[in-house]
Amino acid sequence: MKALDLKKAVSGIDALWSPRVAAKINDTFVKLARIQGDFVWHAHEHEDEMFVVLKGRLCIKLRDGDVWLEEGQALAIPRGVEHCPHAPEEVHIMLIEPATTVNTGDATGDERTQGETLYLEG
Amino acid sequence: MKALDLKKAVSGIDALWSPRVAAKINDTFVKLARIQGDFVWHAHEHEDEMFVVLKGRLCIKLRDGDVWLEEGQALAIPRGVEHCPHAPEEVHIMLIEPATTVNTGDATGDERTQGETLYLEG
Repeated sequence: MKALDLKKAVSGIDALWSPRVAAKINDTFVKLARIQGDFVWHAHEHEDEMFVVLKGRLCIKLRDGDVWLEEGQALAIPRGVEHCPHAPEEVHIMLIEPATTVNTGDATGDERTQGETLYLEG
Repeated sequence: MKALDLKKAVSGIDALWSPRVAAKINDTFVKLARIQGDFVWHAHEHEDEMFVVLKGRLCIKLRDGDVWLEEGQALAIPRGVEHCPHAPEEVHIMLIEPATTVNTGDATGDERTQGETLYLEG
């Protein structure tokens, strides 16, 4: 068991929009991801989800407005709430969500839908 | 729904060793806490737990050695593993753990055992 440096770990991920599991806490995954650009509008029918910004600025578009997250800020999205992450520049994030969560939620036709669980290396 | 500034939120907690729920992600709590000094040795029989340091330095004592966490570092403690947080100076942390988790685990006689769920104000 050793300390995980979150910023260093996320910097080492080799692809955008490809969350990696850093830890499994019972039925919940703590994931790290590098994202840039616009994701797809989606909702998770059964899963709440928390975004934490580790580096950069992230906009979470919601149907009733945008929420901007600066470094060190977090936002929990309740299940069923449509959202669309938007990152004009690269953002590094931590995600806290049930292990059952599919990244694109109900927008399963999106090419970035992650069909398998990827773990952080090292 | 608005951004939660983690460092600012944890700074506003008015007591040490008194984790406050910042978000509930399905059956998991994301908590914030200010701690200083030595906690009690304990284990959580059924719950994994993740510590993330937001400010300061935290030592997690384990039976086979100490793990020091600097700001921005994290450590997941699997269920059943005895641990004892040790903070020579005040540390601000985020905890990710099942909602059923009791802060003192199997050391329920400790006076800091939190008998009720406390939520972050504001």
